[in-house]
Amino acid sequence: MAEEVRGSIEVDDRGSVLVARINGGPLGLFGNDVAEALDELVERADHDPKVQAVVFTGTHPNRFVSHAEVRWLQEGGAAVPPVGTRGASALAHTARGVNKAGGFKAALGKSPLWPAVQLERVHQMFLKMNRSGVVFVAALNGSALGLGAEFSWANDLRVMADGDYVIGQPEVLLGIMPGGGGTQRLTRLVGTHRSLVAILEGKPFTSQEALSIGAVDDVVPQDQVLERAISLAEHFGTRPKESRAAIKRSVYFGGSMELSDGLHLERAEFLTTALSKLGQELMLDYMANTEVAGELPLYVPGVYDAVLSTGTTRGAGVPNKTGSEG
Amino acid sequence: MAEEVRGSIEVDDRGSVLVARINGGPLGLFGNDVAEALDELVERADHDPKVQAVVFTGTHPNRFVSHAEVRWLQEGGAAVPPVGTRGASALAHTARGVNKAGGFKAALGKSPLWPAVQLERVHQMFLKMNRSGVVFVAALNGSALGLGAEFSWANDLRVMADGDYVIGQPEVLLGIMPGGGGTQRLTRLVGTHRSLVAILEGKPFTSQEALSIGAVDDVVPQDQVLERAISLAEHFGTRPKESRAAIKRSVYFGGSMELSDGLHLERAEFLTTALSKLGQELMLDYMANTEVAGELPLYVPGVYDAVLSTGTTRGAGVPNKTGSEG
Amino acid sequence: MAEEVRGSIEVDDRGSVLVARINGGPLGLFGNDVAEALDELVERADHDPKVQAVVFTGTHPNRFVSHAEVRWLQEGGAAVPPVGTRGASALAHTARGVNKAGGFKAALGKSPLWPAVQLERVHQMFLKMNRSGVVFVAALNGSALGLGAEFSWANDLRVMADGDYVIGQPEVLLGIMPGGGGTQRLTRLVGTHRSLVAILEGKPFTSQEALSIGAVDDVVPQDQVLERAISLAEHFGTRPKESRAAIKRSVYFGGSMELSDGLHLERAEFLTTALSKLGQELMLDYMANTEVAGELPLYVPGVYDAVLSTGTTRGAGVPNKTGSEG
Repeated sequence: MAEEVRGSIEVDDRGSVLVARINGGPLGLFGNDVAEALDELVERADHDPKVQAVVFTGTHPNRFVSHAEVRWLQEGGAAVPPVGTRGASALAHTARGVNKAGGFKAALGKSPLWPAVQLERVHQMFLKMNRSGVVFVAALNGSALGLGAEFSWANDLRVMADGDYVIGQPEVLLGIMPGGGGTQRLTRLVGTHRSLVAILEGKPFTSQEALSIGAVDDVVPQDQVLERAISLAEHFGTRPKESRAAIKRSVYFGGSMELSDGLHLERAEFLTTALSKLGQELMLDYMANTEVAGELPLYVPGVYDAVLSTGTTRGAGVPNKTGSEG
Repeated sequence: MAEEVRGSIEVDDRGSVLVARINGGPLGLFGNDVAEALDELVERADHDPKVQAVVFTGTHPNRFVSHAEVRWLQEGGAAVPPVGTRGASALAHTARGVNKAGGFKAALGKSPLWPAVQLERVHQMFLKMNRSGVVFVAALNGSALGLGAEFSWANDLRVMADGDYVIGQPEVLLGIMPGGGGTQRLTRLVGTHRSLVAILEGKPFTSQEALSIGAVDDVVPQDQVLERAISLAEHFGTRPKESRAAIKRSVYFGGSMELSDGLHLERAEFLTTALSKLGQELMLDYMANTEVAGELPLYVPGVYDAVLSTGTTRGAGVPNKTGSEG
Repeated sequence: MAEEVRGSIEVDDRGSVLVARINGGPLGLFGNDVAEALDELVERADHDPKVQAVVFTGTHPNRFVSHAEVRWLQEGGAAVPPVGTRGASALAHTARGVNKAGGFKAALGKSPLWPAVQLERVHQMFLKMNRSGVVFVAALNGSALGLGAEFSWANDLRVMADGDYVIGQPEVLLGIMPGGGGTQRLTRLVGTHRSLVAILEGKPFTSQEALSIGAVDDVVPQDQVLERAISLAEHFGTRPKESRAAIKRSVYFGGSMELSDGLHLERAEFLTTALSKLGQELMLDYMANTEVAGELPLYVPGVYDAVLSTGTTRGAGVPNKTGSEG
């Protein structure tokens, strides 16, 4: 049975960075097992203060994630009578309630609600990635279609293998549409029109196309993808985790709100960081260093570059102070 | 009387694609007659399952649509005392109610509400285009200003004639502003800042500028515009209409919502397509073909390209099965 | 004391354009004095019908605004116990109420609410800039970090000095995050992903990078920045102020709403301008000129260019009529 998958995730703990290898079986599929393992990992990384970043890659030699396990999508659907959008919206709402109440392994069995509940759970996991201070980096060792692409869009950064690989949303060609956030996150990533055309046509982007429109952040030879992704994870991982969380929430959620609402969200997030222990400490340190240097540390020649490398302004601009100029 | 227009639309029925020629009189204007004819055509195309796409072009030798019939905008206004934005918002609300209740030819005559009602009706028609599974393609045989540009932005794809033609929003130069969606759809098409600057200045884009910023999808010699637009209409028209409708709604509407709300809309639209007869049929077919090929059809060399050409995965990846590799 | 600032703004009144020089002391900081002076100036420019545009520049030889006065952010925070995002949101709400009730100099002294109130005030001032018919142009004579960058994003146009200058959001490096609108306005200016990455990293854009992604509108040699900014201010300043205000509100606010809500806002703003005295006058004039010319004025060769230069269509397309072809 080509579609039978026992998906799993192998985690390589490197301290501040976790490298997670997604094993979707010989066909590289994203099914319920992968979803459950991912959810557990995201939860752990979010709560563990030692974990700054997670790099995802695929165990398949030429694919990151092929696409969703189609049986997963189809089987549940077969048990449910066709419904209009209004019915589907109600189903989605109910699924959200069930999910909140019971968690993943609620005893729903193969009830008609099951597929909607599982879909809701995947959405909640991707949203958790967006709200978290963890930096998520997709190391696209190969192609990613459908849910594989949607999982990539839910990451914060994407590095993709150069060559004959593609990333995108083919769902329209199967008479369905993206259901794991593709119409929303790709739209916010590359703009309304590019997203619309790509999803309507079902045509994926090559690595180079994805790079040119900003759908991925870097394209490197396949054997350097993981290394490059880890290096980005480490770099962004030096910034304070709580600041990153507040910034991610402000940009991902506030950035999609009406301007005044987004500004209100930003103000709340800002006040939290400004009143935090670390924020207070670093601001006092910056002020003290300004006194000593007689200049704002970020404007002392060479200091900003050094700070970008260490990740905070601690000791910046004052020669011989810990953590400053490299 | 240069401004007296008897606008009409000539429809050439080519089966799955309708070619609609907009005749706005010798000056190529978009007035109430054109609005009524357009509304009828959009309604028909949306409901007729045979119609997959509509291509719009202009009968004027060098213009798609010159701009709105200015008398149309001005006359109603003259009957109404100047109002502040709050009053105008109330007027717009009332107009929406009147429009829902009575349809186009409600016996309002030239009441002070008339212009607001007609404006509301044009907005509802453009929104209907955005919600519909029909692919709308603007074949810009020449320039399009004001309401002509706004009508273009309401289409899904735009092909424009190369040469000395322009598309954009000159309204500020007449002491007014775009009122047919220009500030909203151009903003979502080319980004907030580019849209702001263009509309504040009143300066239109040349064909090449429009292409370079993504405001149009292709620029070809004038005598190839229609042919190119029809070819795009046919290509996108091979995708399942219900999937296209769900995708368009998710991207146009969900894509402009706060992220979590947009995701909820997507989930509802996705469930509808996943539970549909065609979705179920194509997913079962894809699974069966995976069994036969021992590989996911979209990853069998050459198959994805063939599927992009036929429009669905039916029979894909299995030699000698109907509809697969071309 | 390097951080002690007596900030001020020197205004050079050139009739329709005000040139405002921001003096943030020897270190070029944006503190409470600058905020109060700015608020007063924005209010005045918004209400004075003679003022069409304001150009801001910095008195520091190589900086527009260095960044916020850090003590301003830190001191208030020190008086308040750390709060979670929910508490901070409540604080932000309360601050809004206080601000509405009392204005800037309410007798709050150094109460724990003070920093939230001042932050709220800065936000309201930037929002006032976005709602106003005044064209605000940032003449970036040098670098702008943090609140300096955020103030720049709140302008309508930005001209930046070529050379070794930077603009951006370093806050994450101090354990805080942008709090003056950076996560919202930069996101809407350059797109979600570019904004996210820049703010997460804390890395600013060079002049040339800012230009290439549209974060600034022009880059010229430092000694031509002010001249270029004034020239843009004069050009956009020829358009009718009420039209500009309506357009700015529609694009900045409507453009960030769900599509149908944005369209509703546009309709209300449009009806206000269409029913205004100036709108009616210019539309009647345009119709009369169409009669005389036997052609739509904007389509008479050479006329559109002339209109773009004068700022309205008054007399356009009719030889020897006031205000037409230059």
